[in-house]
Amino acid sequence: MSKWAGKRVAVIGLGLLGASLGLALKKSQVCRLGWARREETRRWCVEHDVVDQTCDKLEDVLAQADLTILCLPIPVITQTLIEYAHCFKSGSIVTDIGSDKGVIVAAGEAALKKYNVHFIGSHPMAGTEKNGCQAAFAELYDNAEIFVTTTPDCNQDALRSVEDFWHLLKIASVRLITPEVHDSLVAHTSHISHLLALALTLAVLDCDSSEEEALRYSGCATGFRDTSRIASSSPLMWREIIENNQPAVVAAAQKCGHIYQEIVDSIAQSDFDRFEELFARGKFLRDKWMDYKQSQKSCREKQDSER
Amino acid sequence: MSKWAGKRVAVIGLGLLGASLGLALKKSQVCRLGWARREETRRWCVEHDVVDQTCDKLEDVLAQADLTILCLPIPVITQTLIEYAHCFKSGSIVTDIGSDKGVIVAAGEAALKKYNVHFIGSHPMAGTEKNGCQAAFAELYDNAEIFVTTTPDCNQDALRSVEDFWHLLKIASVRLITPEVHDSLVAHTSHISHLLALALTLAVLDCDSSEEEALRYSGCATGFRDTSRIASSSPLMWREIIENNQPAVVAAAQKCGHIYQEIVDSIAQSDFDRFEELFARGKFLRDKWMDYKQSQKSCREKQDSER
Repeated sequence: MSKWAGKRVAVIGLGLLGASLGLALKKSQVCRLGWARREETRRWCVEHDVVDQTCDKLEDVLAQADLTILCLPIPVITQTLIEYAHCFKSGSIVTDIGSDKGVIVAAGEAALKKYNVHFIGSHPMAGTEKNGCQAAFAELYDNAEIFVTTTPDCNQDALRSVEDFWHLLKIASVRLITPEVHDSLVAHTSHISHLLALALTLAVLDCDSSEEEALRYSGCATGFRDTSRIASSSPLMWREIIENNQPAVVAAAQKCGHIYQEIVDSIAQSDFDRFEELFARGKFLRDKWMDYKQSQKSCREKQDSER
Repeated sequence: MSKWAGKRVAVIGLGLLGASLGLALKKSQVCRLGWARREETRRWCVEHDVVDQTCDKLEDVLAQADLTILCLPIPVITQTLIEYAHCFKSGSIVTDIGSDKGVIVAAGEAALKKYNVHFIGSHPMAGTEKNGCQAAFAELYDNAEIFVTTTPDCNQDALRSVEDFWHLLKIASVRLITPEVHDSLVAHTSHISHLLALALTLAVLDCDSSEEEALRYSGCATGFRDTSRIASSSPLMWREIIENNQPAVVAAAQKCGHIYQEIVDSIAQSDFDRFEELFARGKFLRDKWMDYKQSQKSCREKQDSER
């Protein structure tokens, strides 16, 4: 049985990630507290069994929780850590689901230490282009990798407790990482994908006339649909993610821009052998990654069925 | 009843697109002839009801067919049109599924006219990153847009017959287009997506060490998976597609490169208002396109259920 059984876990922020977390915890033995800014959202989430309980005031939730997970926009996470630092239960643990870790972990450690509250950063590699609690689903975290931050100052017991917490879900694994390595990593594996999807969308769908747009609409099929999917994500959320990871994003984006230019140059210079070689390398790398993900998934399914 | 009922339709090339076409035609009333270079593929396709009949020799299939659809790589389409021009049944129609239309339509019209065979180019906007007959499925063409080429020289009856043929499948619609407009269109809506997916894959997965690769593997989630999906397509096939549409691809790719650079510059210059504005524009355009595709699909499903 998990050490979290019977404990109070507070999900603060009931958007896509928070509400999906509530749903995913339904079969665990934790008491799910939930809070959202809007009263209507709080009520909807209790009515739809996203969480077990709510309170009108955030501080009343924080005071009860053994673990608080801040599922809020990045600036609101740091603001909440600072403004509500004195409200968390003494000895409790606070984590989050923010996509940048440097900014958040620094704010969390600085704000909570004096109140004997332990901050450990988390980042589940999960999400969709949708948002809001009505887009939530219990399987969002299935097979996700979870990054959990380690720093010279972090409390080791709290770190292990946060690791254990994430294992309440059907995740792939928990990986410990420093905030700095994390932020450079996600600039590559997540942030620049959004810049490319956005560039593609603007290049294809921003048309001079409605006739051209109608033609483009016809010409866009499943390839475009998937390559551009994440351009339908929240602009404000992505502004906040990119703004709080600026140097790493710029470095990764420039590297990717050079590779793109190399590909375009091979075509412009009629060096199609080179183009094919680059494509073959890309296919090899992506197929290998897909095989890895697939084998990992099969492995977990086998373990689950043997339980 | 379709004018194609009872006619002989030859699918030449039984890869993903050809074999899926055979499967999709199963419930139509045409006689499905099929041919592939490898004897093993021909046999497999007859055994799995992909086509009704085959012959060992390509010319024996072509001599019988009222309509021939060349489902081959682009250079093989043009080569077949030239080398086998004298083998097609007099008065018959030939079309294809190639992703570039300028090169193919010019070759087809020039080669077949003197034999009283009518060439009309087609390009169904359908496909996956997979290939080969074993990856084929009957629904591949469902909801696809089909481009059919018109030229000053094309036979109008043949053009209408090819349109009618595609309506045997559950497609979205047939759109008439000149080869030139088509090739510029697909450079935008399809070809540059592949260059971006490739650049992303190389930027993320081409690592200096196995430790870095393991970390990147963990950091890649569904966003990366979808944005990079088509980088798993066939390098040779994409070399051929790009090589036969070079000027249009270079123009579209450079335009997209400038937009990408504008996005990266907004981040590097800390102009996050501008970044958010660009993202909001992209989201608006993509959501609008998705709504259009969704309404089109719902409309067709309603029509189907009323039949």
